[in-house]
Order: sequence, then C-alpha cells, then structure tokens
Amino acid sequence: MSKYASVKEEAFEANMQLPALGLVVFTFGNVSVADHQNGVFAIKPSGVPYEELSADKMVILDFEGKIVEGDLRPSSDTNTHAVLYKNWENIGGIVHTHSTYATAWAQANRNIPIYGTTHADHSTSDIPCAPPMSDEMIKGDYEYQTGFQIINCLQESSISYQEIEMVLVGNHAPFTWGATAKKAVYNAKVLEEIARMAYLTEQINPSALRLKDALINKHFERKHGPNSYYGQ
Amino acid sequence: MSKYASVKEEAFEANMQLPALGLVVFTFGNVSVADHQNGVFAIKPSGVPYEELSADKMVILDFEGKIVEGDLRPSSDTNTHAVLYKNWENIGGIVHTHSTYATAWAQANRNIPIYGTTHADHSTSDIPCAPPMSDEMIKGDYEYQTGFQIINCLQESSISYQEIEMVLVGNHAPFTWGATAKKAVYNAKVLEEIARMAYLTEQINPSALRLKDALINKHFERKHGPNSYYGQ
Amino acid sequence: MSKYASVKEEAFEANMQLPALGLVVFTFGNVSVADHQNGVFAIKPSGVPYEELSADKMVILDFEGKIVEGDLRPSSDTNTHAVLYKNWENIGGIVHTHSTYATAWAQANRNIPIYGTTHADHSTSDIPCAPPMSDEMIKGDYEYQTGFQIINCLQESSISYQEIEMVLVGNHAPFTWGATAKKAVYNAKVLEEIARMAYLTEQINPSALRLKDALINKHFERKHGPNSYYGQ
Amino acid sequence: MSKYASVKEEAFEANMQLPALGLVVFTFGNVSVADHQNGVFAIKPSGVPYEELSADKMVILDFEGKIVEGDLRPSSDTNTHAVLYKNWENIGGIVHTHSTYATAWAQANRNIPIYGTTHADHSTSDIPCAPPMSDEMIKGDYEYQTGFQIINCLQESSISYQEIEMVLVGNHAPFTWGATAKKAVYNAKVLEEIARMAYLTEQINPSALRLKDALINKHFERKHGPNSYYGQ
Repeated sequence: MSKYASVKEEAFEANMQLPALGLVVFTFGNVSVADHQNGVFAIKPSGVPYEELSADKMVILDFEGKIVEGDLRPSSDTNTHAVLYKNWENIGGIVHTHSTYATAWAQANRNIPIYGTTHADHSTSDIPCAPPMSDEMIKGDYEYQTGFQIINCLQESSISYQEIEMVLVGNHAPFTWGATAKKAVYNAKVLEEIARMAYLTEQINPSALRLKDALINKHFERKHGPNSYYGQ
Repeated sequence: MSKYASVKEEAFEANMQLPALGLVVFTFGNVSVADHQNGVFAIKPSGVPYEELSADKMVILDFEGKIVEGDLRPSSDTNTHAVLYKNWENIGGIVHTHSTYATAWAQANRNIPIYGTTHADHSTSDIPCAPPMSDEMIKGDYEYQTGFQIINCLQESSISYQEIEMVLVGNHAPFTWGATAKKAVYNAKVLEEIARMAYLTEQINPSALRLKDALINKHFERKHGPNSYYGQ
Repeated sequence: MSKYASVKEEAFEANMQLPALGLVVFTFGNVSVADHQNGVFAIKPSGVPYEELSADKMVILDFEGKIVEGDLRPSSDTNTHAVLYKNWENIGGIVHTHSTYATAWAQANRNIPIYGTTHADHSTSDIPCAPPMSDEMIKGDYEYQTGFQIINCLQESSISYQEIEMVLVGNHAPFTWGATAKKAVYNAKVLEEIARMAYLTEQINPSALRLKDALINKHFERKHGPNSYYGQ
Repeated sequence: MSKYASVKEEAFEANMQLPALGLVVFTFGNVSVADHQNGVFAIKPSGVPYEELSADKMVILDFEGKIVEGDLRPSSDTNTHAVLYKNWENIGGIVHTHSTYATAWAQANRNIPIYGTTHADHSTSDIPCAPPMSDEMIKGDYEYQTGFQIINCLQESSISYQEIEMVLVGNHAPFTWGATAKKAVYNAKVLEEIARMAYLTEQINPSALRLKDALINKHFERKHGPNSYYGQ
C-alpha cells in the first residue's frame, strides 16, 4: 500500500465535492492536498471526468512539481499548486475551478468589492484580482508563473495568505486554499456565492457602497477573532 | 425527556427546510421556535452543518438570551431572535438566511418596491431595509442591537410586525417571522422570490412603477382580509 | 363514481406538472380542465400544497363559476378561468402561474418582443401584456374582470385566442391555454423560457431588433401551417 | 438487424445527453451521428419527447437529406445537418439546441467575445454569429440554406470548421459539431457556459477587454497544440 494512500483518498474526496457543489462542468477544476511531512501533494489527473475518478488515480508530486508516484499525467495547473505549497507552508489544500460567477469577475478583471456581511464573515478585504501576466511570462513556464502572480498580488495588496484564502486570476478563474482541502473547497463555494451576490448588488444599486469598517471588523472578529463566538 | 422536546423537534424540522428550499449554503442560516408558555425558544446550534443536525442538538434559551438547556453554543445571531421574541409577543418563529437575491437587496441598501401581486399577496408595503447601525452600536452588543434595528425600522415605516413578516437588514441579510416557524420559513422563501422578481422587473423596465393602491389592497384583502377567499 | 372523474384526474395530473417543471413555488399556480360536453371545468382547490393534492380534491364548476361538485373552495382565480371557457369555446385547459421571468415582464408592464425562432415557433406576434384594470373594476368582481381584461387585450391586438395561447396580465402574472390542459402547461413552460431569453437578449444587446417577418412566418408555418413538417 | 444499428444507438445516447445536461426543454434540440463509410447519418425524429425516444426510432438519411431507413419523420432541421456533413467530411456528429444563454446571444445577433481562458481552452477566436439570411433564402429551402449560412460565416471569418466547433445562427440558436457526437454534445455544453460567462462579464464590466493574444495562444496550445499537456 502506498505511503500516500491517505492523502490520495483525501484528494479524491475533495475533488468529488466540486461537481456535487455545482462548481465545475466536465473537468474544469482540480483540488490538491499537501502532505508537508513527506514534502508532497496529491492532485487530480488531467482531463479525467469526475465519474471515472478514484483515489488511486491521484498523482503525487513534490513541491518542485516532479512526479513522485502515479501513472497518469497530473492536472495541467499542477505547477501553480506546487509554487503555492512551496511558498505558503501552512496551507493543506488548494482548489482551482472555473465556477461561473467568480470566473466572470476574473474575466472582468475586477476585484470583488466587500458589499456585505456574507463577505466579511470570510475576509476583511475585497477579493483581489491578479492582473494578467506579461507576454514573456505567458510564453515561459505559464502555470509556474501563475503561482507567483497570485503570491505577488497578495503581497501588493498587503494581505497574507492566512488572512484571505481566495483570489481571482485576471482573465482566467479563481483559486482558493485553506488549512485543509475541505476548507479550500468550502472557500471555493463561498467565493462563488460572494461573487454572485456582489454582481446582483451592483445591478440593483450601481452606486452601492462598500461595507463600513466597523461592520467588516465585527463580522470577521466574531468568526475568526480571539473572542470568536461562531461555531462550536 | 426534556419538557422542551416538542419545540426542539419543531425547530429541527424548520431548520432542515432551509437547505431543502435552496435558501442556504453550508451553515448560513438559522430558525428558532418560541414556546411562550415556558418563556423560551429553541434555536439551531452555531456552525453545525445541516446534515449533522438533530432535534436534541437544538439549544433552549430564555428571552434574555440566557441558555436554559443544551450542550452546544447557540447560533451567533441568537440575541437578535431573543430581542424580537421579547418585544413581539405574538410571533412563534423567526428565520434568518443569507438567501441570494434578498441578501443582494440588503447589500444594495434598498427597500424592495412592491411591483406586483405576488408581493401584494403577502404585504401591502415595500419590504423595508433597515439602515446599517452606528459604529458604536456595532462595537457594543451587535446581535442585540440588530433586533432593535429591525424593530425601529418597522416603527419608522409605521408598519406593525403583524402586517409585514419580513425585513432586510442593510449590508447584511433578511429576517422573516410568523405565527409559527413553518410560516416564517414560508415567508423566507416568498421573500427570496419577491426579491428575485423585483430585480428582474427593474432590469426589464428601469422605470417600472409600483403597484397601484387598488391592486395592493385587493390582493392583500383576498388573502388576509375579513372576507378573504384564498385557501381553505 | 363521479361523472367528472376523468376530468378531475386530468386536472390533477396537469397541476402536478407545474412544480415538476419549476413553474411554481408553494401554491402559486393553478390548472383547470374543461369538459365542454357537460358544461363544466375542474380546477385546483385554493391554497392546497401540491404534495397534498389528489384527483378527488379537484373542484367542479360550471362556466358561470358556480360550484357543481367538490367540498373544497376552488382556486381564488376561478372566475378568470370561467370567463375564458365561456367566451373561448375551443380551449380545453387553462394555466395560471407566477413563474419568475414571465411575471417579471408582467410587473414591468411590457409586451415580450419576438426576438427569435424559439418565440416564432409558438407565436407570430409579441406576447401581449394586458394593462392593469381600472380601480373600479378592481373593486368589483376582480377575477371575473381579469378574464375580460385578457379577452379585450387580444381583441385590441387583433389576435385570436387560437393564434396565440399565452398572455401577461400587467402587474400580475401570466395565463396560458390550449386545446388540452397538457398543451396549456406546455405553453406555460415555453412562455417562461421565451421570457427568460428575451430578458437576456436585451441585456446582451439593448438595441436588439425584433425578428424579421420572413423568419417569423417561416418558423410558425413549419410548425403550425398547412404544410407543417414539425412533429409526427 | 439494421446495418445502421450502432450509429442509431450512438445517436440515441447522444440525444439523451441534451436533457441530462440541461440544454433543452421539451423537444428543442437534436443530435445526429454520421456514418461516413455508408454515406448516411442518424438523427432524432421530429417532435418526439426525449422520454419516449429509443435507438430504433432514429431516422437514417443520406447526405442529400433523403430518408434511407426509419418510419418517423426526421428532425425539421435535418437538411442543415445534411449540408454540413456533405461539406465537412471530417465531422462525426452535429448538435442543435436552443440552450438559454447561447440562444440569447444569437437573438442579440452578436459574436461572443473571447473574454477568458475558459473560452480560449476551446477556441482561439470569438464564437461567430451568422447573420440572418435574406428573405428569398428563407422562403426557399430554409434548413438547407441554414447549413450554407453556417459554412459561409466560417469562411468569411477565415476559420476552418476544425479550428472552431461552434457557431450561432443569428435570431435562431447555436449549432456545434465534432469528430464524434459525444464531442459535439460536449461542445454544446461548453458553448452554453461560455455564453453565460461572457454575458456576466459584460454586466460586471461593460468595458471588459478581449483576452490578449499571448493568453489565447497559450491556452489553446496547451490543450490542442503539438505539445499539448492537457488530458491523458
């Protein structure tokens, strides 16, 4: 039995949540799970339909993006995952989807403004949209550079990857992450719902204002602060 | 067996209606049920996924928001429910959701105009949107103040809580109530549908007019007036 | 066994199609079926949830709206159905819903422009929206007058009820009809889809043009003309 | 047993995917499968509901549109399929739907701009919208001319039918194709999703820019180029 059996099983289950939550059509998404102790992560094989997926089809790679175990070719976005795991040592899972509303904001090249408490329950800032990369970077190692595009975007917004667990890549689609793959999948669904609500908010009131700071802080603190009182 | 067994069961069943009606994702909502004879209400525990919910996990509190029975922490919105029960003696259930369209109107900080008979079947006025509270109130007992924000909003609009059973809290999300929890859940779904139709109405005709008074009165009377002829 | 057993069964089955096709929430709709031989029609009882419906609960009325058989109160819209059956002798079924997109157009008080062949497959004209009736008519026999509002709307547009089988009642919602209840239900779903597509068409191109006459005629003729070649 | 049994079975299965993928209501769509060796194709019979469909009901025609086998009348769009098979020798399947968002773009008479990588994964150009044909052509052999309308549209855009496998017919609806019927159905779903995302993108940012060339090429190449690394 593979020493990576449990991380493969976790990756399989998290990947299967994407169609269950309505976040993907066909094969437009992937989830990975990190095993920091062994310095590897498990990721969905490329282009395999969800209904044909199983735990043993997951591919194991190190944080340089080198295959360690697995017969199938890994997701074409694998190097983006590798870069994020290598640079953000505390994340346990990463999700990439082309979910409809989040992708529409990415295609619009706009940050998602924080318009309400649903957003504030999960982040104190707008959801940043990383600008499209330069032509030279695209022609180089594109997926690798996408990882740095995400890292740079957060740095320029002065937000740590622990404060916000979701980002849009301009003209492309969203990435989310978290302490576990389960949390990263949760974030992918939350982001889609936030993106949908923000779109509708602007349609209903084109001059809608961002949430004021006192409410942003209150809602984030009650869920994530030292005196949080949400959850068990 | 707990003397609150039946109110817990009722709260459990009403809470389970929220995902069934498509009004919540994850744990974004809660229903409570009042037992006015015993001066208590049952409410969903905080952050527990709907699929893990059961009647015995419901928390019993008095109308001051003090826990009377239950091992779990109650919904973070509990004090809002407590204030409403204490001040509105005739309501038997309260629902809070972040349903998509109603929340978008709340984020837009707009009342929902009464555009048609679907709305008039349930209310003779626009659905009011309570303004965001002052920073001082937010920093104080936030959920408690949310209750008063709702009560004040109705008073300023000169509407009684028996005439309208739904409200938006600006930048936040909707609350609905009713003589029973079942009716409050019904109102939450109706509000979501009214919110969606009003949004589409304005997109189709940006200068759409509110329903005229004769139609408002006719539709409300035929469902709720002394000579009503809707239902059995 | 009631002599109306078969018309009741047909009405029951047609009513159950409304939630199955996503055209109603709760009790927001009703279907009736005419039995012209006996001069009666069967209609859904008022306010009874679809999951509690059965064929024997259908109410039988004559074309004056007088109850002939049944213990329950008929749909509050019954008189609208009665007027249409009395005046349009060739229709076998009528459907009333508050389906989302069709109702939004009704609330916007706009005819639905004929933008494409999906629409032309079912009608050669825009879907007319009857204007809201005068205050005096509303205060009188409202549902009875709604029937005449529909009849007058078609007459003023010079369209016969056989050429078009769907209409919007301004500020209210759609009515559809057909040779059978099954056809009327089909029309209710088609109208909802046409309404949705027309809304999106205008969002995508605010200066979209109506379909040109040659295409309107071609599509209607191939489905309904003397040399039709659609269907078996 | 018919020598066309396997192509009929394939056509049946591909047709049943349309309602499963949410691309059709009632009978608003059809799939055909070519058997180039025998110079025929199998297509859905006209107006038969999907729940009554079976493999033996499929109609076999040659590429002139003449029936070779089958008791039922073929889809009214059959001649469009015939023209495409006759002129494009490498396609194995064709799909026609009235899917909501793609049809709305067709009714708006607009090409779908390439706004993101979801689009670029499938095409390097905007999805072209063929202009409505002249009145004379409509009055002639309409479905036959629709086929030429599609062929001419691609020629005028200097795109081969192998580079792009989807098109809109102005005021009408989409057609897609592929090496197999399964691929053509896949393309129909992808087109609907691209159409929906592009609509939302313009609502969120009315001055959204088309994807830049470097990204278009990168995404298309990684999925379809000589050094592609998507899929197995």
